[in-house]
Amino acid sequence: MNIPKSNFSEWYNEITKEAKLCDLRYNVKGFVVFMPWSVKTMKIMYADFEKELESTGHKPALFPALIPESNFKKEGEHVEGFVPEVFWVTHAGNDELEEKLAMRPTSETAMYQMYSLWIQGLKDLPLKIYQSCQVWRHETKATKPFIRSREFYWIEAHDVFATEQGARDQVAEDMRTTEKVMHQKFGIPFFFFRRPQWDKFPGALDTFAADTLMPDGRALQLPSTHLLGQNFAKPFDVKYTDEKGNSEYCWQTCYGPAVSRIYAGLISTHGDDKGLVLPFDLAPVQVVVVPIPRKGNEAPLYAKAKELASTLVAAGFRAEADLSENTPGFKFNEWEMKGVPIRIELGGRELENKELTLCRRDTLAKEKIPEAQLLSRVPVIGAELSANLLVKADEHFKNNTRKANTIEELESELKKGGFIAVPFCSLEKSSKPCADKVKAVNAGDVRGTLFGNDEKPKAGEKCIACGKSAHEIVYVARQY
Amino acid sequence: MNIPKSNFSEWYNEITKEAKLCDLRYNVKGFVVFMPWSVKTMKIMYADFEKELESTGHKPALFPALIPESNFKKEGEHVEGFVPEVFWVTHAGNDELEEKLAMRPTSETAMYQMYSLWIQGLKDLPLKIYQSCQVWRHETKATKPFIRSREFYWIEAHDVFATEQGARDQVAEDMRTTEKVMHQKFGIPFFFFRRPQWDKFPGALDTFAADTLMPDGRALQLPSTHLLGQNFAKPFDVKYTDEKGNSEYCWQTCYGPAVSRIYAGLISTHGDDKGLVLPFDLAPVQVVVVPIPRKGNEAPLYAKAKELASTLVAAGFRAEADLSENTPGFKFNEWEMKGVPIRIELGGRELENKELTLCRRDTLAKEKIPEAQLLSRVPVIGAELSANLLVKADEHFKNNTRKANTIEELESELKKGGFIAVPFCSLEKSSKPCADKVKAVNAGDVRGTLFGNDEKPKAGEKCIACGKSAHEIVYVARQY
Repeated sequence: MNIPKSNFSEWYNEITKEAKLCDLRYNVKGFVVFMPWSVKTMKIMYADFEKELESTGHKPALFPALIPESNFKKEGEHVEGFVPEVFWVTHAGNDELEEKLAMRPTSETAMYQMYSLWIQGLKDLPLKIYQSCQVWRHETKATKPFIRSREFYWIEAHDVFATEQGARDQVAEDMRTTEKVMHQKFGIPFFFFRRPQWDKFPGALDTFAADTLMPDGRALQLPSTHLLGQNFAKPFDVKYTDEKGNSEYCWQTCYGPAVSRIYAGLISTHGDDKGLVLPFDLAPVQVVVVPIPRKGNEAPLYAKAKELASTLVAAGFRAEADLSENTPGFKFNEWEMKGVPIRIELGGRELENKELTLCRRDTLAKEKIPEAQLLSRVPVIGAELSANLLVKADEHFKNNTRKANTIEELESELKKGGFIAVPFCSLEKSSKPCADKVKAVNAGDVRGTLFGNDEKPKAGEKCIACGKSAHEIVYVARQY
Repeated sequence: MNIPKSNFSEWYNEITKEAKLCDLRYNVKGFVVFMPWSVKTMKIMYADFEKELESTGHKPALFPALIPESNFKKEGEHVEGFVPEVFWVTHAGNDELEEKLAMRPTSETAMYQMYSLWIQGLKDLPLKIYQSCQVWRHETKATKPFIRSREFYWIEAHDVFATEQGARDQVAEDMRTTEKVMHQKFGIPFFFFRRPQWDKFPGALDTFAADTLMPDGRALQLPSTHLLGQNFAKPFDVKYTDEKGNSEYCWQTCYGPAVSRIYAGLISTHGDDKGLVLPFDLAPVQVVVVPIPRKGNEAPLYAKAKELASTLVAAGFRAEADLSENTPGFKFNEWEMKGVPIRIELGGRELENKELTLCRRDTLAKEKIPEAQLLSRVPVIGAELSANLLVKADEHFKNNTRKANTIEELESELKKGGFIAVPFCSLEKSSKPCADKVKAVNAGDVRGTLFGNDEKPKAGEKCIACGKSAHEIVYVARQY
């Protein structure tokens, strides 16, 4: 790596290229090729989310990628929000289609017509379905690999309840899922915000979203949950018959962890000047064995390197021996750049003494262990590394959450980056002018109030934008 | 199930509906919704194939779903073969695109332009990449769920070699992969045919395909491998520099296990008059516990049922206790129809005696075991069931492979279904009239010669169609 992480934007571009995470040279604008090193980690991330979703009663399904135009028109706000971004299929072979078909930008309007057929009574509720898929949106903002592109990979979980409370409880469950998977497993800290009314999902009553912090101090939206209320149930006729025989509209939520975007959060959160740093459980290669030969000992050294890698693989670790013709120094740099958690250095002395030198990627600390301890020591170091990444990420996040009481203070704090808590009017649409004013002064976005937290302004505190009584503590950040 | 499997076509339609494998009511013609019970099994099938592909050196990637029209035009046969089936994206939002984009029907023309950037020298070869994705083809033939629809789910592995021999060896490896996964794990027998030249993949030198046999005696094409030769390397400029500094075109293969179609093979091969029968490792629920209560013992019985399911889940099995309000008889039928491999029947006597009654789905045989043997007995029965399904499938396959020496014999054999081996001219294009004649007489398709088998006609044997000297033994079957 030639660029230090402090120069984040360029560091990010360099690492995606050097570590072969993606290739931007595909010949459709805004579309990228995801390469093996990122895809292997994203597959693990998918599996982690899917496992957690299944443990909370979600079942997998696969809905078509194409949605008839007429479906979109059923929910007014939704059509307005998404149609400008839709890729339209108009022909099949040489024939024009009778009705044009949208490549799904999200699947509400594909799924809920089926839900209306599947749900009759209380016995069918709650219905909790997820699909792992890709979606397409013709973004007009500048694209950046993994962060924003015209095709991305996500999970969308669409849940249906008999009551409003059921739906509201699901929002809290989605926050816990995000905490368990994205924070605890991936080491990505976040705030779970209730978004302002002017910044919600088209068609939702309310949007809740997990924002993490990028190294440049800007917020990145990761999974969001939308409380759809009955807004889609009504046009799509998603109803159940209650105990008294009355037909009632259902309450709905949807939750969307965008795995390819979370991957951007992962590499940005943990990376350093040498490149990627990957949590042990997410690394495509967890342990790499690098032989350091002298003339004459190549053969036994290479054989031992292979044997060590095989021993690790047989024990269930992802391990490789790097027997290429590159120098050990080149190999050290290469695998550090790729973020491999543990390097085993194997030289003549190690071979003689039946010792191994282990170097962990986060601290670059080395330790010598007897070869016999390999299988017991690797998972311990791996767990320590992952825990350390989490602690460091949490610290950075905490250090970049501050307060301001005036718009001038906010401006000066935002220059340092991070989330700045400020007193503010409200999240209702009527307060949008206040948000616009904040944005105009310092390019900060009102991200919302903390979900599940009763933080309120003190008596007498004023909205930093309009000076009237503040009713909320909102967090402001510059955003991706 | 109301329809016996002997009435296969209707049995198939009924089982896909009754077991909630898919829903055909989606409002785009030829597109279906895959429901949890099939998706869970397909996820396992994906994982099995991916694991085997990775063990033979393949790496996962994700290429865009959209391909510019100009890419298609680079390989003449390919464009002719696929363009009539392409869904075209012509607009984004309200704007017409400068170039129309194909929803990938297959990814050669998306991937190989990138391969040309990725491959420079021998050190980059072989390149073995797979992606798990869905593809879209505007089929004009009648669709049938899982078997043929306008959107399907597959893996496509695209491999590149320096030499023709490398590519040919890959064909053999793909056959072994199919054997290990589809036959040994899924229990689906197949012949691996070299297809006639008039029935190959558009743009390939040669196509090899695994055909299984459906219960109605018709052949179903499952994974196929295409020896592309240098046909794509030339237009897409996929080259390497050899030891002497010469620039050479690469040799390529592609292999495409269509998981959603193999699922059709799975349920058709193993199902019976009562519904699905699933191999133990592929079942979404491997063990179901059904309590059979008498008045007064519901509470302890239900508690024990739950406990047994939890014990199984903790040991890594997929298990459920059915505590719904349905009668035990209803539950027996329901879970048999869904193909759950093992049912545990738990009545008052079992509870008292700390015994369990286990019923296996394939034979419906019951056995009583002490409760303490649960965790040791379940995997044994599971393995026996899967092995038995494989044996039965192999037997059916073998019993439906026969010979014929004249076109009249062929006609009479084909009426009974199966693969019929006959002497035939050749697989060259010049022999297509012979295949057309066979097809006209008895609707049989020439599926090809057995790959890796030196089976040849005896001296003096004549082509059943034209009466000239036969050079090949080909297999004929009616096909899906």
